[in-house]
Amino acid sequence: MAVFSSLTPVFVAVLCVVIGFLFKKSQRRQTRSKQERSDQTAKPWVDEDLQDDTEISSKHNEEDDDDWLDTTEEENLAHIPYTPAQYSATEMLERSEKFYSLMNLRRSVRFISPEPVPKEVIDNVIRTAGTAPSGAHTEPWTFVVVSDADVKHKIREIIEEEEEINYKQRMGDKWVQDLKKLRTNWVKEYLDVAPYLILVFKQTYGILPSGKKKTHYYNEISVSISCGILLAALQNVGLVTVTTTPLNCGPQLRSLLQRPANEKLLMLLPVGYPASDAKVPDLKRKDLNEIMVTV
Amino acid sequence: MAVFSSLTPVFVAVLCVVIGFLFKKSQRRQTRSKQERSDQTAKPWVDEDLQDDTEISSKHNEEDDDDWLDTTEEENLAHIPYTPAQYSATEMLERSEKFYSLMNLRRSVRFISPEPVPKEVIDNVIRTAGTAPSGAHTEPWTFVVVSDADVKHKIREIIEEEEEINYKQRMGDKWVQDLKKLRTNWVKEYLDVAPYLILVFKQTYGILPSGKKKTHYYNEISVSISCGILLAALQNVGLVTVTTTPLNCGPQLRSLLQRPANEKLLMLLPVGYPASDAKVPDLKRKDLNEIMVTV
Repeated sequence: MAVFSSLTPVFVAVLCVVIGFLFKKSQRRQTRSKQERSDQTAKPWVDEDLQDDTEISSKHNEEDDDDWLDTTEEENLAHIPYTPAQYSATEMLERSEKFYSLMNLRRSVRFISPEPVPKEVIDNVIRTAGTAPSGAHTEPWTFVVVSDADVKHKIREIIEEEEEINYKQRMGDKWVQDLKKLRTNWVKEYLDVAPYLILVFKQTYGILPSGKKKTHYYNEISVSISCGILLAALQNVGLVTVTTTPLNCGPQLRSLLQRPANEKLLMLLPVGYPASDAKVPDLKRKDLNEIMVTV
Repeated sequence: MAVFSSLTPVFVAVLCVVIGFLFKKSQRRQTRSKQERSDQTAKPWVDEDLQDDTEISSKHNEEDDDDWLDTTEEENLAHIPYTPAQYSATEMLERSEKFYSLMNLRRSVRFISPEPVPKEVIDNVIRTAGTAPSGAHTEPWTFVVVSDADVKHKIREIIEEEEEINYKQRMGDKWVQDLKKLRTNWVKEYLDVAPYLILVFKQTYGILPSGKKKTHYYNEISVSISCGILLAALQNVGLVTVTTTPLNCGPQLRSLLQRPANEKLLMLLPVGYPASDAKVPDLKRKDLNEIMVTV
């Protein structure tokens, strides 16, 4: 007993080291499994496409220029004079007012007429969208124009199926309650009815002739800018649309339309004339002094 | 001694608990300080503003709708008929061609004339940008229009200082080599010369009258779309600009312009007439069949 007693401090020390070691190991395992779990159980209602891009875009910034044109590429190009038409101050003012009035009539419209629209007009609005600036002049956009009734219907099925899940399972309690009142909300009739669906894909990277990948700087911002110009072009010819971002449908729609892996769905625009009974919510826009600060 | 010996198991147990507790605490502290360190040593050339948004936007998706208007909000609003002007097929085709031709003349121009531009025209182009659609109709944009020479110069100083560091220290070897040829590249004369600088801020969240924060769904895409419409409006009146994203300058510029914490700089556009000797690189745009797929 005396021997045991005299060994107590040693025994305690050894025991503590052993316990400490086991404890540390179990903690490490716990941390790792926690991490793994949090990786795996990534919330199902988070759009994977957008997540992909998020990662890529933070990598992008590492080598970015502040100007959108790749200066290196640009230096190798001939530079040509640029002398566009100039308007007098009066003309400018008139033009700016007229364009504002036109654009201010634009509304997001979900009631679209099945009436056919000349395809040449659609070609021209897509051409116009293609005049947007882009990071390093990569032009990282693909516009898939769908008029085939079967494909439109498949798109509708994919979106409504996901949307029903979004509404029923992926949204918060507040949404679930709203759902009861808004039964038809995941039903997107316009996807069948509109003569055209324009699916806008951003190319998250490019593929060089050598097969190597090429960074597409700011591809999401660039494609969004081109969508702004597309909206202006549609409004200019009297067509309507609604800017939608089909949640969680990107991979299925990409696969349906056989787009390559570097393309991610950014937006879907149903396009046509407004239905004769089209209605829009009575929304107001902010005044100039709420959106502009003059210094 | 016998008493002490008989108490050994109890003593050992208590000691182990105490040591285990201390160990756990120190581990937790270590983990936290590791996290803090990794937060601090975020690569200096990664734009912090963009990172902020990245985090927020992945959170956004959790409760998102596929349509950009918040349906709940919308349901509470009166719905009004929407019957915009319609054009004949011939008119549409003509209008679409004319608008395409106009937009196709747009180029990114870095040589801007100091010639003054009527402020009313700038007001109208900003009004026009404000007609863009936005997630849940949040209109998450602030356009800061700077014409004050001192403020413009301070902006130039901030951007050139960061740019010099970007070019000299933050960019890869490929860039550093290019630097030797392109000495003047971080010098942005147009920031002093252009009659207006438009700094476009995205509001990453809103603040309700109650003081609570409000999610601004898809704020970056929305503001980029409004920039697309802004570029169209500028082109329409014969003004030029270049879309720039000043790397790492967001916080300093926000502070200079006294913008609130929920606003992050997305783009800076110098605006004016093109200089008489303006040159642009001889870039070509992709053909329609390279950007459009018809299904």
